[in-house]
Amino acid sequence: MKRYEALAADIAASIQNGTLKPGDKLPSVRQASISRHVSPATIFEAYYLLEAKGLVRSKDRSGHYVAAGVARLPPEPESVSRPDGEARPVVISELVLGILESTMSRDVVPLGSAFPSPLLFPFDRLGRATSVAISRLDPWTTVDNLTLGSQALRQQIALRYLIDGVQVGPDQIVITNGAMEALNLCLSAVCKAGDAVLVESPCFYACLQALERLGLHAVEVATDPRTGIDVDALEAAILRHRPKACWVMTNFQNPLGSSMPEAKKQALVELITRHRLPMVEDDVYGELYCGSHRPAPTKRFDGEGWVMHCSSFSKTLAPGYRVGWVSPGRFLREVTYQKLTTSLATSIPAQLGIARYLERGSLERHLRALRLDLQRNRDQYIEAISQHFPSGTKVSRPAGGYFLWIVLPGAIDALLLHRKAMQAGISIAPGPMFSTSPGFGSCVRINFGHPLTTRVEAALQALGRTALRMGK
Amino acid sequence: MKRYEALAADIAASIQNGTLKPGDKLPSVRQASISRHVSPATIFEAYYLLEAKGLVRSKDRSGHYVAAGVARLPPEPESVSRPDGEARPVVISELVLGILESTMSRDVVPLGSAFPSPLLFPFDRLGRATSVAISRLDPWTTVDNLTLGSQALRQQIALRYLIDGVQVGPDQIVITNGAMEALNLCLSAVCKAGDAVLVESPCFYACLQALERLGLHAVEVATDPRTGIDVDALEAAILRHRPKACWVMTNFQNPLGSSMPEAKKQALVELITRHRLPMVEDDVYGELYCGSHRPAPTKRFDGEGWVMHCSSFSKTLAPGYRVGWVSPGRFLREVTYQKLTTSLATSIPAQLGIARYLERGSLERHLRALRLDLQRNRDQYIEAISQHFPSGTKVSRPAGGYFLWIVLPGAIDALLLHRKAMQAGISIAPGPMFSTSPGFGSCVRINFGHPLTTRVEAALQALGRTALRMGK
Repeated sequence: MKRYEALAADIAASIQNGTLKPGDKLPSVRQASISRHVSPATIFEAYYLLEAKGLVRSKDRSGHYVAAGVARLPPEPESVSRPDGEARPVVISELVLGILESTMSRDVVPLGSAFPSPLLFPFDRLGRATSVAISRLDPWTTVDNLTLGSQALRQQIALRYLIDGVQVGPDQIVITNGAMEALNLCLSAVCKAGDAVLVESPCFYACLQALERLGLHAVEVATDPRTGIDVDALEAAILRHRPKACWVMTNFQNPLGSSMPEAKKQALVELITRHRLPMVEDDVYGELYCGSHRPAPTKRFDGEGWVMHCSSFSKTLAPGYRVGWVSPGRFLREVTYQKLTTSLATSIPAQLGIARYLERGSLERHLRALRLDLQRNRDQYIEAISQHFPSGTKVSRPAGGYFLWIVLPGAIDALLLHRKAMQAGISIAPGPMFSTSPGFGSCVRINFGHPLTTRVEAALQALGRTALRMGK
Repeated sequence: MKRYEALAADIAASIQNGTLKPGDKLPSVRQASISRHVSPATIFEAYYLLEAKGLVRSKDRSGHYVAAGVARLPPEPESVSRPDGEARPVVISELVLGILESTMSRDVVPLGSAFPSPLLFPFDRLGRATSVAISRLDPWTTVDNLTLGSQALRQQIALRYLIDGVQVGPDQIVITNGAMEALNLCLSAVCKAGDAVLVESPCFYACLQALERLGLHAVEVATDPRTGIDVDALEAAILRHRPKACWVMTNFQNPLGSSMPEAKKQALVELITRHRLPMVEDDVYGELYCGSHRPAPTKRFDGEGWVMHCSSFSKTLAPGYRVGWVSPGRFLREVTYQKLTTSLATSIPAQLGIARYLERGSLERHLRALRLDLQRNRDQYIEAISQHFPSGTKVSRPAGGYFLWIVLPGAIDALLLHRKAMQAGISIAPGPMFSTSPGFGSCVRINFGHPLTTRVEAALQALGRTALRMGK
């Protein structure tokens, strides 16, 4: 743990145990720097992190204060998952498909959805950029750079990598039909049916679906709900199962909301490099941070190219455009071949439209607004859940993304809660969608990517009441 | 064989053996109808077919004439392929990738390319349609109908099916990232690693690549260079190998240019229905016919839903937009699930742009021009090849698409010819790309989708000279 992370954890504990109360002013950066014997920069980082988690608010010029209402918020889930460590074929498709189908109507309150509100995105500006880009389309670009994707777009993505301290050039990027395709191409590039793949426990259901489709065996690895996958447990699983890949969501993990501290990311890259284990890094939420800066992808520490870094514009700018990418490191040729033979190329209008939008420098402004919207939603949803859910409920405090991970008290059955909620026109994502093992039967993932309207608040209230009845 | 097909074959033979000479006028439709005791419609159909094959030209009001130069054109390949009938894993990726990579530069004369000239497509009109469509985008459509694809586009595709006499509604269509994805989704929906799949011999290399990637075994089936896959041989292979799917390109097959007569298509559907064998129908060239009407997809005769009909707009309207579709019959749910878990959805701007273009009714006008362009190219390319290639060369006379299949005389090595041609900046597609068995070592596929410019004619001349030297 870095110094500022330790300091932030320290202050968070003081808030949780009541030493610091809502409205209390934190020491000024200068004071704290002197009393803690650390640089002002470290204090700043710590305060930013606390702000990102919603524990602290800054007021212009007057300093930092403990956030109102923070003391009565439900506790965070803390226990690290304990999967049994076996490798097994995945059989989850019917469960997941059934739940997804039930949640796809616009009439259902989308707490179980995987998508944020489409109204948070600049479709007008993006549409205009796309119109201009296609009006200037050189027909030959439909033949050139077919499989890698638009040179202009790869250039823009490489620039963003540069800003994030990642060394990836335009020629080391393959544009894909969303991150979903990128992740699938990576798996196909390094695995064949029957191979073992290490995944988080719990993990994104689409990861499990991909493993099932490709006939791969999942080995779930212990994962901390705040700091992500356990690196020691990962090494034990490597030694035991000789896997062909691991799949890790390093920032704002879906569903936990966990984020790996930088030192842990470095240890992770060091480990997989030592074992020559290809790693699929799913980083689609990394830009949706609440703090002062984007958390690093592990790709930043990837000197030898074992990390295949996947992301997309679907959650940040352009839902429905289906433009993602992968920077596959040493597996560039393999991944390119997979792309060539599965879908040949990615849609040109969407690529050129996004490239032009990025060239005009409009992305950062939009992202700042989007991050603030999501951060506000998060705090309001946590507040509402603390009011309406049974006592003993635990709720994650993610520093980014748009998912809350909820552990219900008293072994309340999340699948049953899902069925009851659907009858009331409310979707949720029950824990069993996210694992091949039985540990998450009382867990629920809640999407806070939609504004907390009266309708949503009523849905949370109804959900809490149902859970309360089920717990009795 | 239908009556008009028999009649056309009869006349073609008279042209080949010199009974009818270039410039000779054919009997009028009325005369022929009386003397042959068939309806005028049958005569019309036969003359259309001969026109489509370039053997006959019609002059306005004055009748039909044997095409100039037709007598000295090289003969068509006739011998049906004789694959050994074994099932084997496919290992073709390195060969194909190497050849594709060598042909991707704009500086190379693209005789080996799989794409027609991008200048043949209405990018301006299509771009304007796309601009209008995205300026009216309802953000919620990025969430609705996610996996099946745009309702408006599926409606338009269903209308075209209706015109072609195929019973497929909008809800039986899944939009995909080009036909390539559609074909892959179909295979994944019904096969798993180790299963046998029946394919044509020779067949499109992307089919072989897909089999290799999925760990499937290929069984090549005897195929007639004019009338496509041999239905009896197919049945024998079904009985011997118990395959999980077959993959057939029914119209203007790549690389042969063969088209299955309607009766043969009906027999094919009857056969696979009787054996409950899922059939992937790759019909991406069906709209690029030279005659009077679109040849039927076998899907038209598919009463029980065993045919998964795949096509796209990439060869007909919108290269680079990457919009294809599949009508998967009884496998709708399986294919939808594959789509959901491999790429989730297809790019919205491209879908809406094409839908609007189709709604405006602009497609048929563009297609008429495109078909005439390709037909003219075909005749010019055949003429040039007949001048420049060694005597004994055989050249297909496809009634659509944009590929010629060439059989070189004297066992000339097509792979060696490819390497020599590349040194001169000319690409070709050598026969071994299209098969796992050794029968096509002296065959070459030539793309006539680009206008026969001086540069292209010089390339054909150089190619012919090189082949001539190699044959000595």
